[in-house]
Amino acid sequence: MRITDIREATASISSEIQNAYVNFSQMTVSVIAVESDVIRGGKPVTGYGFCSNGRYAQGGILRERLIPRLRAAGEADLLCEFGDNFDPHKIRDVMLANEKPGGHGDRAVAAGALDMAVWDLVAKIDQLPLWRLLSERYNSGRHDERVMVYPGGGYYYPGKGLDRLQDEMRGYRDQGYTVVKMKIGAVPLADDLARMEAVMQLVGGNDLAVDANGRFDLAEALVYGEAMAPYNLFWFEEPGDPLDFQLNAELAAQYPGALATGENLFSIQDARNLIRHGGMRPDQDWIQVDPALSYGLTEYLDIIKMVEGLGWSRRRLIPHGGHQLALALAAGLQLGGSESYPGVFQPFGGFADDTVIVDGLAEPGEHIGIGMENKIDMFNEIQRLVG
Amino acid sequence: MRITDIREATASISSEIQNAYVNFSQMTVSVIAVESDVIRGGKPVTGYGFCSNGRYAQGGILRERLIPRLRAAGEADLLCEFGDNFDPHKIRDVMLANEKPGGHGDRAVAAGALDMAVWDLVAKIDQLPLWRLLSERYNSGRHDERVMVYPGGGYYYPGKGLDRLQDEMRGYRDQGYTVVKMKIGAVPLADDLARMEAVMQLVGGNDLAVDANGRFDLAEALVYGEAMAPYNLFWFEEPGDPLDFQLNAELAAQYPGALATGENLFSIQDARNLIRHGGMRPDQDWIQVDPALSYGLTEYLDIIKMVEGLGWSRRRLIPHGGHQLALALAAGLQLGGSESYPGVFQPFGGFADDTVIVDGLAEPGEHIGIGMENKIDMFNEIQRLVG
Repeated sequence: MRITDIREATASISSEIQNAYVNFSQMTVSVIAVESDVIRGGKPVTGYGFCSNGRYAQGGILRERLIPRLRAAGEADLLCEFGDNFDPHKIRDVMLANEKPGGHGDRAVAAGALDMAVWDLVAKIDQLPLWRLLSERYNSGRHDERVMVYPGGGYYYPGKGLDRLQDEMRGYRDQGYTVVKMKIGAVPLADDLARMEAVMQLVGGNDLAVDANGRFDLAEALVYGEAMAPYNLFWFEEPGDPLDFQLNAELAAQYPGALATGENLFSIQDARNLIRHGGMRPDQDWIQVDPALSYGLTEYLDIIKMVEGLGWSRRRLIPHGGHQLALALAAGLQLGGSESYPGVFQPFGGFADDTVIVDGLAEPGEHIGIGMENKIDMFNEIQRLVG
Repeated sequence: MRITDIREATASISSEIQNAYVNFSQMTVSVIAVESDVIRGGKPVTGYGFCSNGRYAQGGILRERLIPRLRAAGEADLLCEFGDNFDPHKIRDVMLANEKPGGHGDRAVAAGALDMAVWDLVAKIDQLPLWRLLSERYNSGRHDERVMVYPGGGYYYPGKGLDRLQDEMRGYRDQGYTVVKMKIGAVPLADDLARMEAVMQLVGGNDLAVDANGRFDLAEALVYGEAMAPYNLFWFEEPGDPLDFQLNAELAAQYPGALATGENLFSIQDARNLIRHGGMRPDQDWIQVDPALSYGLTEYLDIIKMVEGLGWSRRRLIPHGGHQLALALAAGLQLGGSESYPGVFQPFGGFADDTVIVDGLAEPGEHIGIGMENKIDMFNEIQRLVG
């Protein structure tokens, strides 16, 4: 059993939206196909992957470092002990050989995309939905039939007023979502409070999450926190720089509500530092590391162990990214939930076309592998780019 | 005044050496030329830059993100207020626009190479050695005539025994170095102790630095620390994972000698976390952030301010990398010293060809700009690659 081809390409997910930090008019992702010599229905079984949004495509690192190492590896270096499937853990070690420690950024994104394709391939070879494979291998067969999901939305974009923000949120409720999220931090506090209160005409504060995308310094975060405390929000996300653990700890000491952060932490080391130094409260706060940005599901398995070793429940993990991989691992490994993108980062954002949201919960479905073939617009684009 | 062309290419610095973590047989760096419309001697004034070793070339990020943003910028977005030179701070903001916070890795390396070329260009337009320009702009004209330098050496490579390790160290002493450095952590402790004691037949322990390149877990670091404490070493470098600040703090609480780390921290946020959470002792430990890996000299100026704001002296900063940029900023901004590469990472390692080392000190020289034109083998390679 061997890998016969690895193809990668760059896809555009550009849009007019912006958060408090960046606009997405030039945003791209890497798309990958890992083809095997296993033939089913006359065609080679192939795994597909892509990186999550926000950090751009990683073609250079993939083409110059990670993919050549896989191509150069011996067959046995990539297979599990029984030789009847690939071993994502061994593949990770091969693709990251001769990479120095530290500096977890673009490299982690590149590896995340490639690792997604590997897991899709592995689940397809086992003829299982990825979430079932994860449940059997790593969770004693336990799993969740339904996963808490929330739409990452409420972006700023040109000409968007309170009416359109309310329309957007009403749309999410009509689609079956319970908790909704909106961006804050790109306009003055009074304007953001008016935006929040407009949304709270439709949903209770305890179903509203807000996301500052790392924009605030400590003083701003505290002022926002004090102003928002009466709303009893679902969470206050990424208040300050993702690596300013001290800011997070000082805010956590004063802000009574839940905090959430981690989408811009790209390794087990960085996530561990958040828990060690960030003042996060295991009974109420949320960790949002995204496997499709941070070396993949393989590293995420280690992150779950690390988190539990530090006394946290895996239920406090809700991955960023709104992709099928996150939904699969939330279901199979019984995490707290998954972000969802019903409206943005198309065609890569969101779940399979037949995924129905009821009472804010999504079922992972019985699609073999990650199930990208069942998200038609996305899969057509993947096919066009990497066959 | 405008940038007329930006060229980039990948250069090999492959060699047979290895440290405790990686081998360098596939190692590359990015090389950059930033050409201006300022004509001197009939030729456009051009700045050159490259990234430091260990993290590979970054052509993808440069070609897809950083360089296009500079090309698309308006003239005024890149110039200082008087319009008679480029402004590296404004250029940094342009090249990193729409980049999310966190994830400081390959992107920081790409920016470091481009930023080096910008500073070389700026100093050339001002017709000053870079270290003099830094001294005048940021250090009230103060500077150091001579800079403490030490050779980054003592690597493991095939067939190298104690004799050849001693020969290497004897060679550094003959070249004028006082403090020397060797790698540890790739062989059992007893073997490493024998290697250290072989070197200490030539140099006092207080002139020997050892470097574990992030290899040890806490238990190993403590065992090595206890075994090495009697040697009274110059420093014990990068004992554990560069982001395991807790390990560093626990080691610092037990190991009496100096610690040094930071070459794998690529941003002001990561360096700040080392000081906040890593237990580093401002009276004896060393911080080794490398400007040619961490967004460049422009970010390094902010790092100096941050370090001093937290009560540290800039004399505790000794940049990794062994390049002329580090020597220039150590001299012009009065840091603690600079690494040097008389033997490795050629042709990019090391200083100008006419740099003489006396009593472990190097003079930065009067070459205009960074002075890469005066390191002939390297400059020939740069000319071949990016004109």
